[in-house]
Amino acid sequence: MTAVYFNSWLEEYKTPFGAILVNDFVSFKIKVEDDYVTGVTLVVANDAGLRHTIPMENYGTNIYAFDYFFNEGKGVYFYYFELHYLDANNTQYKRYYGAITGGGAGRLVDHIDEIQTYQITCYEKAEVTPNWYREGVFYQIFPDRFYNGNETNVVNNPKPNTFIYGNQHDNPMYIKDENGDISRWDFFGGNFKGIKEKIPYLKELGITGIYFNPIFEARSNHRYDTSDYLTIDPILGTEQEFAALLQELHQHDIHVILDGVFSHVGRNSIYFNYDGAYGKTNGAYRNIHSRYYPWFTFTRYPEEYRSWWGVKDLPEINKDNSEFQQFIYGNTGVLQKWNTFGVDGWRLDVADELPDEFIAGIRQNLDQFEDKVLLGEVWEDASNKISYGKRRQYILGNHLHGVMNYPLREQALAFLTAGCLPEVIARHFTTLQENYPRDIFYNSFNNIGTHDTERILTQLNGDTRKLALAFGLLHLFPGVPCIYYGDEAGLTGGKDPENRKFFPWDEIDQNCYEACHKWITLRKDNPVIAKGEFLLLYTQRVLGVLRYDAEDFVLVFFNPSNGIQVITIEEIQTLRPLPITKEQLKAIIGRSNTIQESGTLTFSGKLFD
Amino acid sequence: MTAVYFNSWLEEYKTPFGAILVNDFVSFKIKVEDDYVTGVTLVVANDAGLRHTIPMENYGTNIYAFDYFFNEGKGVYFYYFELHYLDANNTQYKRYYGAITGGGAGRLVDHIDEIQTYQITCYEKAEVTPNWYREGVFYQIFPDRFYNGNETNVVNNPKPNTFIYGNQHDNPMYIKDENGDISRWDFFGGNFKGIKEKIPYLKELGITGIYFNPIFEARSNHRYDTSDYLTIDPILGTEQEFAALLQELHQHDIHVILDGVFSHVGRNSIYFNYDGAYGKTNGAYRNIHSRYYPWFTFTRYPEEYRSWWGVKDLPEINKDNSEFQQFIYGNTGVLQKWNTFGVDGWRLDVADELPDEFIAGIRQNLDQFEDKVLLGEVWEDASNKISYGKRRQYILGNHLHGVMNYPLREQALAFLTAGCLPEVIARHFTTLQENYPRDIFYNSFNNIGTHDTERILTQLNGDTRKLALAFGLLHLFPGVPCIYYGDEAGLTGGKDPENRKFFPWDEIDQNCYEACHKWITLRKDNPVIAKGEFLLLYTQRVLGVLRYDAEDFVLVFFNPSNGIQVITIEEIQTLRPLPITKEQLKAIIGRSNTIQESGTLTFSGKLFD
Repeated sequence: MTAVYFNSWLEEYKTPFGAILVNDFVSFKIKVEDDYVTGVTLVVANDAGLRHTIPMENYGTNIYAFDYFFNEGKGVYFYYFELHYLDANNTQYKRYYGAITGGGAGRLVDHIDEIQTYQITCYEKAEVTPNWYREGVFYQIFPDRFYNGNETNVVNNPKPNTFIYGNQHDNPMYIKDENGDISRWDFFGGNFKGIKEKIPYLKELGITGIYFNPIFEARSNHRYDTSDYLTIDPILGTEQEFAALLQELHQHDIHVILDGVFSHVGRNSIYFNYDGAYGKTNGAYRNIHSRYYPWFTFTRYPEEYRSWWGVKDLPEINKDNSEFQQFIYGNTGVLQKWNTFGVDGWRLDVADELPDEFIAGIRQNLDQFEDKVLLGEVWEDASNKISYGKRRQYILGNHLHGVMNYPLREQALAFLTAGCLPEVIARHFTTLQENYPRDIFYNSFNNIGTHDTERILTQLNGDTRKLALAFGLLHLFPGVPCIYYGDEAGLTGGKDPENRKFFPWDEIDQNCYEACHKWITLRKDNPVIAKGEFLLLYTQRVLGVLRYDAEDFVLVFFNPSNGIQVITIEEIQTLRPLPITKEQLKAIIGRSNTIQESGTLTFSGKLFD
Repeated sequence: MTAVYFNSWLEEYKTPFGAILVNDFVSFKIKVEDDYVTGVTLVVANDAGLRHTIPMENYGTNIYAFDYFFNEGKGVYFYYFELHYLDANNTQYKRYYGAITGGGAGRLVDHIDEIQTYQITCYEKAEVTPNWYREGVFYQIFPDRFYNGNETNVVNNPKPNTFIYGNQHDNPMYIKDENGDISRWDFFGGNFKGIKEKIPYLKELGITGIYFNPIFEARSNHRYDTSDYLTIDPILGTEQEFAALLQELHQHDIHVILDGVFSHVGRNSIYFNYDGAYGKTNGAYRNIHSRYYPWFTFTRYPEEYRSWWGVKDLPEINKDNSEFQQFIYGNTGVLQKWNTFGVDGWRLDVADELPDEFIAGIRQNLDQFEDKVLLGEVWEDASNKISYGKRRQYILGNHLHGVMNYPLREQALAFLTAGCLPEVIARHFTTLQENYPRDIFYNSFNNIGTHDTERILTQLNGDTRKLALAFGLLHLFPGVPCIYYGDEAGLTGGKDPENRKFFPWDEIDQNCYEACHKWITLRKDNPVIAKGEFLLLYTQRVLGVLRYDAEDFVLVFFNPSNGIQVITIEEIQTLRPLPITKEQLKAIIGRSNTIQESGTLTFSGKLFD
């Protein structure tokens, strides 16, 4: 232990752990075993320019302490410690104690510009979600690629000048012109009827929720280029068929989250109407007097306009436009329609592109209903995300219930393929746990792959034993697991379009299926996994995930290596305190234990027997 | 009339008209009204090096004459006249009389290197074809694009990694990779069942024969990349379905000509097996010991090989290989199979690439059956075609019965769109008539568009009145008309792939249909059109086609201009003698007559009433 020490993850130094509600106190204690130190100042700052420097109280037992009252509103605060020295030569100087990366133990630096601050998140509301979400096991369906419920696989209402894949086993591809622009869209023809037919499959797997990639009318197969927010894409089926699907899913206790794509629309939408499909004089592109004209930002009318990442096919919406806002979340708007229709939640596409106020507006609409959930597409730590120069309010309350947990995927891959040390994984996740309000952390929408990433099995070089580990992490980490359709069937593929193959109904890989199914079953059989506390254990080679509550626990060790690993009770470390003694732990796992190559070792039962 | 005159189209100068059988005499007479001429030499030459110079006899009435005995075998002969002068100064010199372009009247030139020779074709056999062919009206079907007879348009057995058009109205396109190579083949899914269902349509139109683009197993939608000559492409249906279609067509008196594609095969054929679909060690590409290895010419095995026009997807066959020859036309070969099956004839793809002996071999197979017809894809005047440095034997007997009449299409377009004078059209066709043996000329497989050309309606700028004229020329010129599917329905499009749209069943253009149907009806009602003599009449603006025999005639004038044209009997000219007097002609058409803009004027009846 160094002469100066603080650790944001230990109760001796900071309580409570993690994020706090506004107007909560946080008690900071820093240990200083250095006679030259004459005083310690706590520095608390935020983006708004607040900077408090507070002399800490000397407890006399090498501890300086201060209880800070976070009464300046919600937000992300940053802190570090200034140590005042008076050395043997009577020279006064300062040194600084801050974080290394993330939370936990820190380090002392000589110059203020070396300091890394600690973070404390101060939120205004605990985002408790309904049980259907928190306890759920989700399945992400890219609707064109799941199942075609029509006889002889006929495709409903193909769009003009599009292609249908000759076979469901065909490799998806983009059809582009010389400029690299998409010249024709390609479809397999999955539809609502097909999904309805496969409910027994989903039930058998253990699914309780579906996240649908977009289903509103659009030109492309992915439908992120919305043509009409109020219409179901006819290639998927009719509105009646969607209602029937929704009803059937609900009867089977499967909830439905839709993809809300509100940052941009399709160039050929009813709103922009580039190609005139909606009439010669309708739409912003064709008529400066169109009611939709103010939704867009033209830099030179009509050919130059703001678009998503410069993709001309996706003109960007001006989300500050109040007409658009009302259209989306007003009383007769898009969300009202589909929420009334029975949809259970929304995943907001490219949340970084949506102003906080816009997200709050969406949330207000949802809150008029019971038990709806709002998730956001954020790829990083959402607590301190900055987009367009602005610190985001995503998780501070009354905005999102949770965000997509891409960090889980990233860490899982680092652990399983890149030889990343278990301790590093543990540090990373404990930091996320610290930064997120508890409910936000537990509302994470976990994934190990989506329509935007390479297939997990491909990233694992086709190793199905490693796939089983990845599925384990997906289901055991705090958050709601969401399986990307087909990952459980052995689908492979690199990035888009390869990650969007059709579901291989006639050759489901039973190894992969079992690798997934067993974790879903474990999760179902042990409710503690969905709601219990979370602690990571680790040795040099092995990561353990402990989920526990006052009664039960599940503890799973993951061996990512291709050799057998032996764990001994002495080796096991944690970053936060074990809820039980090492002796008690030993009673559970024994003095030493063996984990097969690329294997797992699972314990469960009563924690405090 | 010039002082020296010869005209190969007039009986006063040459008999008989046109091509002759071997060992026939041709009587040449040349008029010389020039006192300085002391003698005329007929020069007859051929490619083989023959060069006869024959002093012509002086008849004393300004006529030099010679009856030449063509007893040196079949072939194309060339002739001109040498005139020997002795002028007032006692200077001796020679001048030369030859053709201008093609046959007809010629001209005198001073130097031998200015001479254009006349042609005389000497054939060994009159290629009489059965009535089903000679009197037929054909329809060319590109099978993928005609009609899908399956319920809900499901496509039979799509090939791996192919695309199906979303809608039958979609515009066809090629899907290419960065190198410009086809990356996926595209299908609409027309099939045999569909064609069978549309027999009533074909009967109603008046069709009596179908020329099918390739139907054997292949990878592409056009199937010129044969995979297996002995197998029906499963996307079209089964062999049983083809048999059923053939039977039904025959029951409706519709004969069938297949596309014989024997110059090259597909790279992924059973013979070459590039991608290994036919086994890891089969095929020339994969095994130097393959029975198919000698069929191909590898320049560096296996990656470099001769291919059709350098297209690597189409490895060229060495047609001198006797195994291949037997495979195609031997007693248990490809032709034997399908001829026995009931196919009525063949159109040889890229005949220029097939050696004469190979074509003769094919013909021998066909001649074992009754009433089969062999046509060739030749784009130019087939009588004097040279390919790979060799004069071709196509039409000299025992090879082809006839060739595709692309010159008709070319001249029709020149006449209808390029303002080409009717006289020029007449000269062109009278030359062709002269060069071809009579039966070959009458066996021409007429077209105004095929899968290899732009759509006729597009070339006519969408003018359906001009389309009616083009259909008229197609049906009235000597030869067998063949309508490219959809031309009668108003299909448009530029070159491949635009010329291969799906047949527009739900929006057949009735104007176009009638424009076609009326000529078929005229042809049916007047058998003289199929078999009668042929003479072109013309004025400055109008072209007339006269078909006649000892009894009947049909005479149609075509006005290609956008103004009304008046033809008067005095104006009408011909390049060969009218079979009737001008008075008799006047009795038919009147002293003058009016033709509507882009219109026609039709007369028929007994010629010699």
